[in-house]
Amino acid sequence: MENPSIVLYRAGDAKLQDTPVPEIVDPHDVLVRIAFVGVCGSDVHFYRHGGISRMVDPAVGITMGHEASGVISAVGASVTRVSIGDRVAIEPGQPCRYCRPCKSGTYHLCKNMRFAADPGPPVTQGTLSKYYRIAEDFVYKVPESMSLEETVLVEPTSVAVHAVKLGDVRPGETVVVMGSGTIGLLVASVAKQFGAHRVVLVDILARKLEFARGFLECETFVSDKEHTAEQNAAALLEAIGLDEVDTVIECSGAPSSIETGIYVLRGGGKYVQTGMGRPKMEFPMTVMSEKELLVRGCFRYSSGDYELAVSMISKGLIDVKPLISSTSEFEDATVAWEKTARGEGIKNLIRGVQD
Amino acid sequence: MENPSIVLYRAGDAKLQDTPVPEIVDPHDVLVRIAFVGVCGSDVHFYRHGGISRMVDPAVGITMGHEASGVISAVGASVTRVSIGDRVAIEPGQPCRYCRPCKSGTYHLCKNMRFAADPGPPVTQGTLSKYYRIAEDFVYKVPESMSLEETVLVEPTSVAVHAVKLGDVRPGETVVVMGSGTIGLLVASVAKQFGAHRVVLVDILARKLEFARGFLECETFVSDKEHTAEQNAAALLEAIGLDEVDTVIECSGAPSSIETGIYVLRGGGKYVQTGMGRPKMEFPMTVMSEKELLVRGCFRYSSGDYELAVSMISKGLIDVKPLISSTSEFEDATVAWEKTARGEGIKNLIRGVQD
Amino acid sequence: MENPSIVLYRAGDAKLQDTPVPEIVDPHDVLVRIAFVGVCGSDVHFYRHGGISRMVDPAVGITMGHEASGVISAVGASVTRVSIGDRVAIEPGQPCRYCRPCKSGTYHLCKNMRFAADPGPPVTQGTLSKYYRIAEDFVYKVPESMSLEETVLVEPTSVAVHAVKLGDVRPGETVVVMGSGTIGLLVASVAKQFGAHRVVLVDILARKLEFARGFLECETFVSDKEHTAEQNAAALLEAIGLDEVDTVIECSGAPSSIETGIYVLRGGGKYVQTGMGRPKMEFPMTVMSEKELLVRGCFRYSSGDYELAVSMISKGLIDVKPLISSTSEFEDATVAWEKTARGEGIKNLIRGVQD
Amino acid sequence: MENPSIVLYRAGDAKLQDTPVPEIVDPHDVLVRIAFVGVCGSDVHFYRHGGISRMVDPAVGITMGHEASGVISAVGASVTRVSIGDRVAIEPGQPCRYCRPCKSGTYHLCKNMRFAADPGPPVTQGTLSKYYRIAEDFVYKVPESMSLEETVLVEPTSVAVHAVKLGDVRPGETVVVMGSGTIGLLVASVAKQFGAHRVVLVDILARKLEFARGFLECETFVSDKEHTAEQNAAALLEAIGLDEVDTVIECSGAPSSIETGIYVLRGGGKYVQTGMGRPKMEFPMTVMSEKELLVRGCFRYSSGDYELAVSMISKGLIDVKPLISSTSEFEDATVAWEKTARGEGIKNLIRGVQD
Repeated sequence: MENPSIVLYRAGDAKLQDTPVPEIVDPHDVLVRIAFVGVCGSDVHFYRHGGISRMVDPAVGITMGHEASGVISAVGASVTRVSIGDRVAIEPGQPCRYCRPCKSGTYHLCKNMRFAADPGPPVTQGTLSKYYRIAEDFVYKVPESMSLEETVLVEPTSVAVHAVKLGDVRPGETVVVMGSGTIGLLVASVAKQFGAHRVVLVDILARKLEFARGFLECETFVSDKEHTAEQNAAALLEAIGLDEVDTVIECSGAPSSIETGIYVLRGGGKYVQTGMGRPKMEFPMTVMSEKELLVRGCFRYSSGDYELAVSMISKGLIDVKPLISSTSEFEDATVAWEKTARGEGIKNLIRGVQD
Repeated sequence: MENPSIVLYRAGDAKLQDTPVPEIVDPHDVLVRIAFVGVCGSDVHFYRHGGISRMVDPAVGITMGHEASGVISAVGASVTRVSIGDRVAIEPGQPCRYCRPCKSGTYHLCKNMRFAADPGPPVTQGTLSKYYRIAEDFVYKVPESMSLEETVLVEPTSVAVHAVKLGDVRPGETVVVMGSGTIGLLVASVAKQFGAHRVVLVDILARKLEFARGFLECETFVSDKEHTAEQNAAALLEAIGLDEVDTVIECSGAPSSIETGIYVLRGGGKYVQTGMGRPKMEFPMTVMSEKELLVRGCFRYSSGDYELAVSMISKGLIDVKPLISSTSEFEDATVAWEKTARGEGIKNLIRGVQD
Repeated sequence: MENPSIVLYRAGDAKLQDTPVPEIVDPHDVLVRIAFVGVCGSDVHFYRHGGISRMVDPAVGITMGHEASGVISAVGASVTRVSIGDRVAIEPGQPCRYCRPCKSGTYHLCKNMRFAADPGPPVTQGTLSKYYRIAEDFVYKVPESMSLEETVLVEPTSVAVHAVKLGDVRPGETVVVMGSGTIGLLVASVAKQFGAHRVVLVDILARKLEFARGFLECETFVSDKEHTAEQNAAALLEAIGLDEVDTVIECSGAPSSIETGIYVLRGGGKYVQTGMGRPKMEFPMTVMSEKELLVRGCFRYSSGDYELAVSMISKGLIDVKPLISSTSEFEDATVAWEKTARGEGIKNLIRGVQD
Repeated sequence: MENPSIVLYRAGDAKLQDTPVPEIVDPHDVLVRIAFVGVCGSDVHFYRHGGISRMVDPAVGITMGHEASGVISAVGASVTRVSIGDRVAIEPGQPCRYCRPCKSGTYHLCKNMRFAADPGPPVTQGTLSKYYRIAEDFVYKVPESMSLEETVLVEPTSVAVHAVKLGDVRPGETVVVMGSGTIGLLVASVAKQFGAHRVVLVDILARKLEFARGFLECETFVSDKEHTAEQNAAALLEAIGLDEVDTVIECSGAPSSIETGIYVLRGGGKYVQTGMGRPKMEFPMTVMSEKELLVRGCFRYSSGDYELAVSMISKGLIDVKPLISSTSEFEDATVAWEKTARGEGIKNLIRGVQD
């Protein structure tokens, strides 16, 4: 096979098959030989349901995967930022570069964004292939000291960087992070790097918070499912000995967690919605108004986020290695998805095609 | 009577009675002889229900009123900003000046704020008296060209200034204002003064929008109660010939209006919740996240808002006179409240005590 | 001649000659048939000195001109924003779209910017040709109601928009504009559109300020060359009846004007350096520190500036017609430059090639 | 003596003498029994010249000192933030709380600020006394783990916090600090706490940079007095292997250092002037314009700066102990000034009055 790829056709139906090797079209394109691909909740959702809001066309299929690392294997004529052989993290979306969001520093909001493994239309192929094509400014060189496994974690770390930026976390702040999955753990770590003096991770599962305390220096609070949001908020504040906190970054998407987050904030506090849940949900509007909160939607990553994530990991400020739970072979991609679906491990990786 | 006042004791029970003339306690205090007091929705709510979240103590009662104009009748020893005889708009809340919000430019979020006609504890008297005491920096001199009736409208105009500031309305923007009551009309007017190139007022009542078009140069859209928020959003955008708008300032508090507002925004768009409605309501979280919207709670007014409102009105940039619907005598305060309760007029005034 | 152009070879040596018609290289390119080109101080400086910091190579020459309007005459295969026949304003610089400034909303700071009439290396041709090539997102459609002569003024209006944005001019502010040439007049006009309640234009020539008062509603102050900056600052503040102002936008580049500007500002005031003067000059650092001023360098225009300039002119918010002083024929380009060099007129135009 | 104080009458003439014990005037006042007072360059300047811009009245004299720690010895009737016996850092200036800067989050720009040891008018006494009076919100409780010697360093650390905030230092940035005196060292330390990934301290004295490398993890560069600013800028960038840096915080006030700082910045870079030098000096205006730099004056400290400095020191994020070079007895205050005048030590302390 020239370009072995994991192609999803419909819920539960994925095949390892050959696809055309992508060609360098634009002189700024590069080809990346994929080293590792991470499994994310959205991959699992695709595998289970055949798509998220847009479904895969079973007649066409789509190459899966969007968290990935690799090595530059070919470069277009105008490429100056990287060279063949460079080890890179991949930012898996390409904006149009011509529209208002692209030209005003928010290319992630480009309406013509082509993001990896998007069923479209238009269909955009993912990273679970031997080779992946992307523009030279969407790959980020990593130093030798950083493994290509760790490099996969640049993607979720960039999600965390983006969220913490939107939360405008300032040195000295107390930050509450709701949900201690991969993103919650990384958000907490990044918040500390932004100078937060206290970071409190909240979850309903005590064992996840135990892992969290080993992963980073932080405080934790177990939310009680039997309690109301008001009760959990009051208990959380009592546990940390404060009347209120500066910033909440919500990484679970659960309604009760969202509500608790709003209640613990100070007047003028900041709230970022990173977790995805039901399209609509009950929201405490009056409290938001009376405290004059700043509430931010949060979507992927944008200008500068990958650079900062690479710098934090490569300088050892965030050690992502403990997040890597398993590595499956390329042909066992679905095994990795199923593992993630069962809640096994934190970040499960798939190794790229071996020669 | 030394200091005739309108005192509310419980729902539907208000009396004209004498209260002690307030004394100058702090050397920065001034005494204002009240000229006019405006009726606001919250006054009506108090009259009907005996309070909003905190109820009036029937054993004590509370002097009503918080929108007011008057003339300085006495000044403390340290007062330098105003003199006896100055005609002023009154900002009816006094913050502590010592806490973090007070010292960081957000005194309206002071937890020890003493706001007019607050049942407390502690009880804070309102402006529906012959005399009202306030610190010298919370009265704002108005020029002779501005009547004391118009001066009452500085308060709701400051609410509008605050909302438009929170919406970070920038020159050239298209701004949608949901709800065309007093605040909606003033928000639309202020948005134009902030340089918005298009302002669209939305309401479910066509007659209110007809008034709006006479009050300011703007576009209007009648929302259809029978339609979904998605349908109203689509129809609104089609009517104005745009795919999306920059900023929405919600002044109705109605759930369908909130949802419509979220749907018409561009990626990275801004939304301000000025209207008060039910404490919790269904909110389209996923759309907020995917468009990475900035959603702001909005509470009263703060640093610089009154100054700007006075300047806009006194320079003739906003003509508030058409908003004044009626003027009741002091002893007929409850008549003005009932008129407002029935939806008669836009801003009903109560004349201060006549000698 | 296929593509008549005005080519400068060295100081004082410009020729009307044929040059190759530019070709559509990128599918997003458009070709513009040039209608009018404006003369700017930098054109005059080039004509007199053969360049500014970088000199024209006399063996190669360079097509002059960078302020221009025209009509789309050809479009690349991917062009969707404009069509053949559209009347447009031209933003005469093309950034690389790949670097950090380009991707973070500041493409005007791109180090690989190719700006019209830049002697390079690399040489970038200007707009004084029959045809000019540019990417589709750097032309801006104007409505029929706006003449192509006015459309030339979109360029200097965008300079003004950029400066006022950097000055973060807010509604209600008092803004002082130093220097009442084309840019000063437009900065003052734009500042009013940003909501400034008072705008004061300052110049050493009373007759220029007389024109200014006819051009826009503003206050003016004649600076006295015989006085110190401290004296001029004190006299200015006395004349306008204020102790200090919010924002200064300096459009002259003269050292005494810069110093005066710093002295009239309030604590925390904002200062923008738009005028270009000597590379180094005496600057009142201690006053800047003690008042904690915000001082901004200012360079050309960037994201959103052209759109806003077009909107302000086309809506009649700024009437640029009085700024147009003369129109020379294409072959008389040097006549227009000499006129400008002598200080005749405000904005002198050159008509595009006639068939 | 009731209240022994070090009073300066004129250049070189300071006396230890009794002064009245300050009384609690406002119910929010507290009295602090002074523990330690730091010597700062401005004290030395006062001692040598009898004042800085405003001179001490020799007929009246002034109690010196403004960096201080102590223990609360009395509290006014309304005080709730601290109690007798609390160990505190003192922020030695009291703003009016009524003016625009005070109410908009910039109380340090209050024109009626009463700052310690200000010859006035009005005269404001300093901290070199047994007792010092200040409002309760301008003392900051420190934990037992923090010595009262270290607590003196909260003042210069707050200067550094303020400067780094004005420089808007963001995680991942490269920050150059010009001058490695007390403020430069603390600015570098604070910049790291704000998330800077690289901090470069620059000085003309290699031995000061040697101390710096022991004090914090940073890079250093010895500026060459014989070289031009352009040459030093080029050499600095070459030494650190970068083309440009994000932020410069100038802490020397020397013209060549200011110029070098401007030259190393990236387009859109940020520059803060913390060092004080000659009132006017040559400044590279054109480079500032062409790179569109943000240049900030910087004055003392304001809202939130002391809290953050206390938090950084008490959490061990910045260890200020190595900066303390000597401790003189109260009656030897002039010895400490002379030591500082000779450049001996970094921060010399004076012990408060012993019983």
